[in-house]
Amino acid sequence: MEPIKSSPDTDRPEAPRVRPAPPFYDDLDASLLEAWRLLRRGVKDRRSPFHTPALATRRDDGFPAVRTVVLRAVDVMQHRLRFHTDARSAKFREISADPRVAVHFYDPSKKVQLRADGRATLHRDDELADTAWRATRLFSRACYRVAEMPGTVVANPQASSSAGDADDPDAGRENFAAISVSIDGLEWLYLAARGHRRARFSWTDGEVEGAWLIP
Amino acid sequence: MEPIKSSPDTDRPEAPRVRPAPPFYDDLDASLLEAWRLLRRGVKDRRSPFHTPALATRRDDGFPAVRTVVLRAVDVMQHRLRFHTDARSAKFREISADPRVAVHFYDPSKKVQLRADGRATLHRDDELADTAWRATRLFSRACYRVAEMPGTVVANPQASSSAGDADDPDAGRENFAAISVSIDGLEWLYLAARGHRRARFSWTDGEVEGAWLIP
Repeated sequence: MEPIKSSPDTDRPEAPRVRPAPPFYDDLDASLLEAWRLLRRGVKDRRSPFHTPALATRRDDGFPAVRTVVLRAVDVMQHRLRFHTDARSAKFREISADPRVAVHFYDPSKKVQLRADGRATLHRDDELADTAWRATRLFSRACYRVAEMPGTVVANPQASSSAGDADDPDAGRENFAAISVSIDGLEWLYLAARGHRRARFSWTDGEVEGAWLIP
Repeated sequence: MEPIKSSPDTDRPEAPRVRPAPPFYDDLDASLLEAWRLLRRGVKDRRSPFHTPALATRRDDGFPAVRTVVLRAVDVMQHRLRFHTDARSAKFREISADPRVAVHFYDPSKKVQLRADGRATLHRDDELADTAWRATRLFSRACYRVAEMPGTVVANPQASSSAGDADDPDAGRENFAAISVSIDGLEWLYLAARGHRRARFSWTDGEVEGAWLIP
């Protein structure tokens, strides 16, 4: 609700309120850099919507499956994303069967959507997994100590039990896995009243190419 | 984490701050009702994260694809969700080839994730499509008048052009489609420091069944 009068706006009472265009608006390079900036911030800032993207896999029965995951690391030069999971989870099993994944980010206040696709690798016993495990907080490790497989049907919602010694900081380590996604394609979408902007960036043999798309 | 001693508070300066459990916490029926309440609210409340879920399909090359869509309608009794799209979009083509979809909702402030899966039907020329078109705002119809197919590569980001007469309220109608998803399964996840709660509801021949799952 704009005030109807307030000089000197009286000359244009119906002037639409349009935000100034951001510097990346018509700039393909700057859009890619903004995407990386938002992804890196999503790792650190727990309140950013980019902290909790949606990871899509192919379910055993052919249906797509999507769930929230926490963005743990972003590697710009290797164009990789990292997540953590329980090695007994459906997503671990699904990625084992088909490593093709999509990762979806959407920030309604920034009006930016990112869609990454690529192949995921699973890490349980290697250096990457060890480094990732050491970076987890002690509090977060509790879920890996749960005795029952995630997704098990139970009669009582309080049924889960702890299998590991809560005083052992490495209890549950055997159930921990890191998921590393190598991004092959990254789609950028910026929503604006003055006109949306959509672009796709693709990596081939380490080279990245970008192109504008019709939104 | 139960307090070891009750009043006074000075006895336990480090007592963890735990929210009171919501009424649906250990109640399977109430969790389903809360899911429907949040979905219905997502249709009306444009600021609710449930207004903009992520829709997953299977891409032509076998990769999963996920993108933000706007939740337009929820039918509790028919356990259906409705979205709108451009009939020239990738998601329209993907659903034509494989109607199995997943819809993902996540509200970080409410700590609730919903994961729906089911089959989608596409509607361009029927009563459902007509009703949906009439419910769109005039402003929203502009995107259906764009001459170029969504996703077309363009050299210039300002390249899109309008094919239809902006003064004709039904210009673009031929590119409009409604997507109706019949929910077969709905997974509920409530995140809480006192213990997460996860449940799955499944519809078979109109009957719904629910079960708690290990989070």
